[in-house]
Amino acid sequence: MNCILLPATSFSHDSAQISESSQINHVNNVLAAKAGDTLKIGQLGGQLGTAIIESIHSDSIQLRDVQLISAPPPKLDLTVILALPRPKVLRRLIMDMTALGVRDIILINSYRTQKSYWQSPMLARLDEFVLEGLQQGVDTIAPRISLEKRFKPFVEDKLASIMTHRGIVAHPYSGQSFAQYLRHQQSSSPSKKLPSLVCIGAEGGWIDYEIAMLAAQGCEAVNIGSRILRTEAAVNAILGQWLLQ
Amino acid sequence: MNCILLPATSFSHDSAQISESSQINHVNNVLAAKAGDTLKIGQLGGQLGTAIIESIHSDSIQLRDVQLISAPPPKLDLTVILALPRPKVLRRLIMDMTALGVRDIILINSYRTQKSYWQSPMLARLDEFVLEGLQQGVDTIAPRISLEKRFKPFVEDKLASIMTHRGIVAHPYSGQSFAQYLRHQQSSSPSKKLPSLVCIGAEGGWIDYEIAMLAAQGCEAVNIGSRILRTEAAVNAILGQWLLQ
Repeated sequence: MNCILLPATSFSHDSAQISESSQINHVNNVLAAKAGDTLKIGQLGGQLGTAIIESIHSDSIQLRDVQLISAPPPKLDLTVILALPRPKVLRRLIMDMTALGVRDIILINSYRTQKSYWQSPMLARLDEFVLEGLQQGVDTIAPRISLEKRFKPFVEDKLASIMTHRGIVAHPYSGQSFAQYLRHQQSSSPSKKLPSLVCIGAEGGWIDYEIAMLAAQGCEAVNIGSRILRTEAAVNAILGQWLLQ
Repeated sequence: MNCILLPATSFSHDSAQISESSQINHVNNVLAAKAGDTLKIGQLGGQLGTAIIESIHSDSIQLRDVQLISAPPPKLDLTVILALPRPKVLRRLIMDMTALGVRDIILINSYRTQKSYWQSPMLARLDEFVLEGLQQGVDTIAPRISLEKRFKPFVEDKLASIMTHRGIVAHPYSGQSFAQYLRHQQSSSPSKKLPSLVCIGAEGGWIDYEIAMLAAQGCEAVNIGSRILRTEAAVNAILGQWLLQ
């Protein structure tokens, strides 16, 4: 938690109140802060800044001298389409994509997504994981997250309108590496070499039928080498490119 | 587990035996394999290949027609110096760095590393995490891992001899971005633009004293943007560069 984000309703003039237990716990136990200390805070959907701790109670922390003066960092011009992963890794994936600044996240069904994943109670907790990701990445603007339980209708009917620029799909068995792809794009349009849409499979990746369906809509398959990474590692390794522009 | 790695002692002529319970469990429950099926296997420290399941017992699986014919992928020309992280994330970090092909991993003390981390029982399980990483990344060669409990003597006395090429240290407050660094290196030596050594802090990063000590040995501080990532995410986002060459 590198900043504490509060909803607009927690602010009043230049004061604010923290009432979430995880945030109170963080202030007390991780920061070990006390009255008079300055906290990095932000308003969900708004600006970032600081406030001074007025008083600490067991169920709330009062803040004074709230100054929300910095705009959050820009979102990445990027939509990630992710095959719904195992519930156990969903939290960290949503947190990481949020912290990295992905603007749109689409969780989609795939052949290798187990049906039971769609019944996971973790899917009801996405807002919580987004908040964690924003507080990790020091941002205030939540990504848009949508769930697409049917692969084929989504890809055939919606994908083209979402893909404003180019798209890629990560696939270990593609003959083209992501590096080759980027070099090729760079030579034709240096300022827009990165795609605006990335599709990443869950464990086991995409099946050929899915790769073909995505390709028919203009998503080029690229590999990131012979080494197969955990979904989380692959997402961060691929999206790391966007941090390095 | 994208391949099953066995020690040399498990092989005999063209047969082999799986006796590790996690591997037996994987064959039975994840792969749902049966006698006659082909498995991707490898010899720890040796070649990769395939074998056919001869028979499955509760405490062992017999393999026949073992063919170890492919060399493992080359290691990255890279040493990662990582401030010893929370035990909870150590497993995934070791797995990921191993799967990515890092050749040398040095776990080091830092100001923000809690002393208790050095007493964690997880440190006795590094070989197990390495095996998981190799089986994830489809490699047979373990990274060399060393533990350095004293920051200053290590940096002053050993770092220079380890850093065969250039080194960087990830630091959110550096004025130079990793992208700027890479562009600068590319213009002076296109084939060797990546450093051979990367230092990554634990949660909270490095303190100024540590950055200065590393800089005195030639490690340039670089940032990866204003967004602060979890250690795991940062490691994968940074090392993703090596996959894209």
